Amino acid sequence: MADAPRLDDLRQAAERIGPYIHRTPVLTCRAINAMVGAEIFFKCENFQKAGAFKFRGATNAVFSLTEQEACRGVGTHSSGNHAAALALAASTRRVKAYVVMPQNASQVKKDAVAAYGAEITFCTPTLEARQQTLAKVVEETGAAVVHPYNDYRVIAGQATAALELMEDVADLDVVMTPIGGGGLASGTALYVKYTRPQTKVIAAEPMGADDAFRSLRSGKLIPSENPKTIADGLLTSLGDKTFPIVAEYLDDIVTVSEEGIIEAMRCIWERMKIVVEPSAVVPLGALLTGRPELAGRRIGIILSGGNVDLGRLPWLSGQEG
Amino acid sequence: MADAPRLDDLRQAAERIGPYIHRTPVLTCRAINAMVGAEIFFKCENFQKAGAFKFRGATNAVFSLTEQEACRGVGTHSSGNHAAALALAASTRRVKAYVVMPQNASQVKKDAVAAYGAEITFCTPTLEARQQTLAKVVEETGAAVVHPYNDYRVIAGQATAALELMEDVADLDVVMTPIGGGGLASGTALYVKYTRPQTKVIAAEPMGADDAFRSLRSGKLIPSENPKTIADGLLTSLGDKTFPIVAEYLDDIVTVSEEGIIEAMRCIWERMKIVVEPSAVVPLGALLTGRPELAGRRIGIILSGGNVDLGRLPWLSGQEG
Repeated sequence: MADAPRLDDLRQAAERIGPYIHRTPVLTCRAINAMVGAEIFFKCENFQKAGAFKFRGATNAVFSLTEQEACRGVGTHSSGNHAAALALAASTRRVKAYVVMPQNASQVKKDAVAAYGAEITFCTPTLEARQQTLAKVVEETGAAVVHPYNDYRVIAGQATAALELMEDVADLDVVMTPIGGGGLASGTALYVKYTRPQTKVIAAEPMGADDAFRSLRSGKLIPSENPKTIADGLLTSLGDKTFPIVAEYLDDIVTVSEEGIIEAMRCIWERMKIVVEPSAVVPLGALLTGRPELAGRRIGIILSGGNVDLGRLPWLSGQEG
Repeated sequence: MADAPRLDDLRQAAERIGPYIHRTPVLTCRAINAMVGAEIFFKCENFQKAGAFKFRGATNAVFSLTEQEACRGVGTHSSGNHAAALALAASTRRVKAYVVMPQNASQVKKDAVAAYGAEITFCTPTLEARQQTLAKVVEETGAAVVHPYNDYRVIAGQATAALELMEDVADLDVVMTPIGGGGLASGTALYVKYTRPQTKVIAAEPMGADDAFRSLRSGKLIPSENPKTIADGLLTSLGDKTFPIVAEYLDDIVTVSEEGIIEAMRCIWERMKIVVEPSAVVPLGALLTGRPELAGRRIGIILSGGNVDLGRLPWLSGQEG
């Protein structure tokens, strides 16, 4: 962790990606505040380009490359949002993107990656298959690998959502993010603790994919095994770069049931009239199931993304037809 | 039409309701611009209080009443959005609201009206039944009737969405609204033509409820008979106050198929990550099905509302379960 991003790195990331990203709005909702009994500020990364905060990290990584590196293209494996983000970031810099995706990624995410012009290689949905397939692609192309989260350039990019949130909203008592691989959580924790250590940083994770929760409780990195959750952005394990950061800088991690995730998702759609994906709502799910210690607090939540397959909604049994 | 709202009335409405309404954002979407081949500015009334532009007209009407009138409460019949809007406007002024709703109004709309504290009387879903039921309620209570659209105070309130849109976006070539009873369309047409007559005002209507289209083409008010469309806010007929205004001030009216409405709705949800109701997307539906004469133009669209029953989405065959 000696070379983990410093505050300067996070600020430089914000400057580097500023011309290419959306500065997303911070929304509030009186009805949800009343339900939770706190004041919530939603940082709407569902409105980010490519539909998720992932575009921040991908853009920071792609635009950190030298000309020589960039011209051979970039490659990654991802279940979806990072893939689309990297594809768009690469096309923004006019370099090639090679993306390894699990076959079971949602159709809307496959379509997005293809639409941004990336070359897709499909593989079976295991971490091992992804890594092997990517290694082969890199061997053939010389592409620079941009890992979805276990990469300091990516972590620094993800931190810029919290940077903007804290510029826009003063005196937050708490900042919450979902946690999967830990890119957003570690970037957020770094920025918050560097600049306002009294603000608590709390990550929220599905109970059905609680490897980060167990890793932090046990003090050692426990990989995700057979995770089962509709929050398909949170299936991955922490990495050797994200784990030490969240272990040191996170104040707490909480877990949420699938019912809690679905309820929170529907609540945001219905009350705020915005489309967010299941992974994005896990922090609100934690608040809706009762966190009395946070009553009356000013809570920032990073709504991580809005890439939902509209043909399959978790509260509807039917299929598209 | 001699006493139709003048420009001063529209501006006074904006001042009167300013403290109570949301000034909704104007959003743009590069992907949709590319699909349509024009520059579209979406005025997001789905983010308005009570989830639709209707809160503007209702608030203007409720706050136009004298103390003496207001203290006996307000009453209306409405298939949904106006009912919720009037209920909330009344509760904002701390007066009572009596709402007559058709039994087949969507559950989310019934719930919203109840949640805002209105007293609901259900009736069969015909204009006649609504009017008779409301007359009875008014006889019993002395409530001031606020019609959903055929009321100059309501029309003036609805005009304020266009007022804000044109303050925020200069040099619009076209402003488009959906048209049902004509409250939004007539308010919009009045404001646009009073202030910038060279801007075209085009209303869009479902083919399955094209009474306004036929009324304007024939020059006489043709009531809506057995309308059939998923755009449940657009089932009503023009009124004797809205018809003359749209007849004089609208530049054009276009109709859109159900498929076109569903496609436009899904397009906005997927690309813009916002929840809008079928009625709101009819103008975009018209553009997506091809309006070559509008290529390259700057087009403002009033996205009228976001009150959707999330348990029934038009592109999903299944039911909630």
